[in-house]
Amino acid sequence: MNLRKKFGLFRDLWSPKVVGEINDYQVKLAKIEGEFVWHQHDHTDEFFLVVEGSMRIEYENHHVSLDEGDIHIVPKGIRHRTVADEECWIVIIEPRDVVNTGDVDSDLTAENDVWI
Amino acid sequence: MNLRKKFGLFRDLWSPKVVGEINDYQVKLAKIEGEFVWHQHDHTDEFFLVVEGSMRIEYENHHVSLDEGDIHIVPKGIRHRTVADEECWIVIIEPRDVVNTGDVDSDLTAENDVWI
Repeated sequence: MNLRKKFGLFRDLWSPKVVGEINDYQVKLAKIEGEFVWHQHDHTDEFFLVVEGSMRIEYENHHVSLDEGDIHIVPKGIRHRTVADEECWIVIIEPRDVVNTGDVDSDLTAENDVWI
Repeated sequence: MNLRKKFGLFRDLWSPKVVGEINDYQVKLAKIEGEFVWHQHDHTDEFFLVVEGSMRIEYENHHVSLDEGDIHIVPKGIRHRTVADEECWIVIIEPRDVVNTGDVDSDLTAENDVWI
């Protein structure tokens, strides 16, 4: 399965699509642009890989810039938000039942377990 | 953390290097060339992403060809081997204590939990 080909199958932003499972973890693709909501995941770390474009992961006192081919793991329980000035394509890996906005209910809270 | 930069830090083949953890899962980088040993992982699926080059994952009755940007998840309990005609750089994600040769003891059995 080719990642870029899969990214070609959808256009909606902030709506993770599941492409596979590693045991009870899911491999999700997302297109992001703009600022996400501040949130945290109390029970899990969250893996990010940038496939196309650039993004930042903002923490309360610093941020991490990610370009194509960069990975970053957000530690569990740490408040953060993702930001992309232009459209950015990312892979997220986390346990199956993780909601994208974590502890926060938001307009950006996406339906979970949507496969593509 | 940039994947290609991390791959530049080691040259040995078939020796997975850990670059991060998602809870009790590890993100490992490996350089492979040639044929690995047939083996299986009885208790876990295994995620592969090709970062550079091409490889095959051979199963007993078919095989999957992977090029740069392709992902594949080997289901648990299924006998397989990885093959690369030329050097190929891959990301593997699987639980922390998984041995590279699974149920088989081989010259290719690598030390586990080696970080880079």
